Amino acid sequence: MTSTNVLKKINFSAGPAILPASVLQQASEAVADLDGSGLSILEISHRSDAFDSVLIETEALVRELMQVGDEYGVLFLSGGASTQFFYTAMNLLNPDETAGFLDTGAWSAKAIKETKLFGKVNVIASSKDTNYDHIPTGYTVPEGLKYVHVTSNNTIFGTQFKEWPETTAPLVADMSSDIFSRPVPLKKFGIIYAGAQKNLGPAGVTLVIVRKDLLGTVKRDLPSMLDYRVHIAGGSTFNTPPVYPIYVMLLTLRWIKEQGGVPAMERHNERKAKLLYDEIDRNPKFRGTVANAFSRSLMNVTFVCTDEADTPRFLEAAEAAGCDAITGHRSVGGFRASIYNSMPYEGVETLVNVMREF
Amino acid sequence: MTSTNVLKKINFSAGPAILPASVLQQASEAVADLDGSGLSILEISHRSDAFDSVLIETEALVRELMQVGDEYGVLFLSGGASTQFFYTAMNLLNPDETAGFLDTGAWSAKAIKETKLFGKVNVIASSKDTNYDHIPTGYTVPEGLKYVHVTSNNTIFGTQFKEWPETTAPLVADMSSDIFSRPVPLKKFGIIYAGAQKNLGPAGVTLVIVRKDLLGTVKRDLPSMLDYRVHIAGGSTFNTPPVYPIYVMLLTLRWIKEQGGVPAMERHNERKAKLLYDEIDRNPKFRGTVANAFSRSLMNVTFVCTDEADTPRFLEAAEAAGCDAITGHRSVGGFRASIYNSMPYEGVETLVNVMREF
Repeated sequence: MTSTNVLKKINFSAGPAILPASVLQQASEAVADLDGSGLSILEISHRSDAFDSVLIETEALVRELMQVGDEYGVLFLSGGASTQFFYTAMNLLNPDETAGFLDTGAWSAKAIKETKLFGKVNVIASSKDTNYDHIPTGYTVPEGLKYVHVTSNNTIFGTQFKEWPETTAPLVADMSSDIFSRPVPLKKFGIIYAGAQKNLGPAGVTLVIVRKDLLGTVKRDLPSMLDYRVHIAGGSTFNTPPVYPIYVMLLTLRWIKEQGGVPAMERHNERKAKLLYDEIDRNPKFRGTVANAFSRSLMNVTFVCTDEADTPRFLEAAEAAGCDAITGHRSVGGFRASIYNSMPYEGVETLVNVMREF
Repeated sequence: MTSTNVLKKINFSAGPAILPASVLQQASEAVADLDGSGLSILEISHRSDAFDSVLIETEALVRELMQVGDEYGVLFLSGGASTQFFYTAMNLLNPDETAGFLDTGAWSAKAIKETKLFGKVNVIASSKDTNYDHIPTGYTVPEGLKYVHVTSNNTIFGTQFKEWPETTAPLVADMSSDIFSRPVPLKKFGIIYAGAQKNLGPAGVTLVIVRKDLLGTVKRDLPSMLDYRVHIAGGSTFNTPPVYPIYVMLLTLRWIKEQGGVPAMERHNERKAKLLYDEIDRNPKFRGTVANAFSRSLMNVTFVCTDEADTPRFLEAAEAAGCDAITGHRSVGGFRASIYNSMPYEGVETLVNVMREF
């Protein structure tokens, strides 16, 4: 898990985000010529044998790495998580049914807004009053919900669920920013969706894992493109899928497997996050923005300078060391280091060294 | 307009389809390193200055090459033309309003099916009875339609509109397979949409040109992602757009401009198509599948062997000469040579030489 290309910047972008150097190398070569075929990955038919192999292997790796059984469909759709905000409700929720939500940030709030177009919403718990600085605890999920929606990791506020809500209803989870970063107990989930551009590949494809027995229970007419069942039946090729983003997702999944799979990713991520949080807690020049250790994200580490006047100078020092895109989101301020799967330990070390010397 | 890479196959795929060799070269380099930035185009933020420049230039080139005024929004969405089949109706058509359709192939039929979920449909003319082997003529468009939908070019059946329907209603056109291949009288159109993967780039982005004054007239609630106005207001970055497909579209648009723009593309396409159709008409071994010259597509040239027994042998001879993906769609049979903008004249010459020697 080392970066081999020392000339490159260290990319701390929240998304689209860093990808492994070896993936970028192969992804570049395939645009020129796919596996010696004489054709670019950008110009082959989505019905070709070459792309069929890509789709089959990508689905197989998702199933293997996340231990997804046949009771789930695995889909590669477009439109991002923002499309899934309404798509999940449109496919699962009748007007007289209620979806529960844990409101933990801007993305949860958007999902709530879109869901209200299709059914009832019960916000079970929210950390909005304290600018989403923690993951709520101590709530009770009521009975009778069609599903409970969670945003597993909140890129903007640097928080992450460590324990899943206790409920008999299936969870619907936006895992855009921490999928494949740690094992998840799949049986709890009815739908998992994730835009690829944080832990899985480039922007342009959305992974959706959906429990098939939940589908077909809504009474509304669905356009074909907005019906999970159509895409399951079509094996993600009901229409032309985003070929290249799927291909780069395949390369990234192969890389995850080579590194030892999801448990190895979790160890790697815990080690990186500990290095950075320890420095934030040790160094009086900095302060974390998340209210408690339990809520801290292993993917997006948010912090500020204790003295706000230091902010521009620290940004300058970090950039001089090659650390790119560490400015925090405007709703939190300060800094955000996104340290997804593909971020090497050495990248975090570089940032921590700048903090130590500051 | 010559192919510089003689080792590559000649790609006659209907889509995803051939791209200029110079575009593929630049597209490959940008995956390794975008313009010497030290970052890959696959890992930069969609809010970065670098991608902002990409979006601005791409929109400007669309406007310049197609002469699109400010009364239209120019959007880069995901979901393909298949998403636009319902999206156009959802945004333009109330339940008591009627959309007219020219039914010229499988894609028109799908658009009709999806539109019926949102309003009334009047199929003004259809060539379905003769397996869509021509573009209908002699029909009259009735008054009172909200819009009239056309599929400008039919990839499967090798037909193409040369004259647009006479109507006071705005046209809504699926131009996925012939956009930027010839000038169009933009004022006739309310919406033009096109999946990129034929004439514009790789799969994963859809160009939508939409007249703003047509929006906001439907009474239904629209999810944010399904509202053209949201994407116009957000400059195609309401959510994370498909960064790389848009970037390759930019490279392709630059190439079109370098070649002399859309009028030059039209001359190039007419010359290539004439070469191939002349051979089909001259050579007794082959027969075109389209009923009349008026209906013939300049983009997808469909033909069969006069003696069906010759089919496998001709396929073999063409493949031996490097001609890839010329098998016809199963609903027509025989052969289909897709000769989009990026197909060099020499590519068509190679295929015609195989036909002459056959």
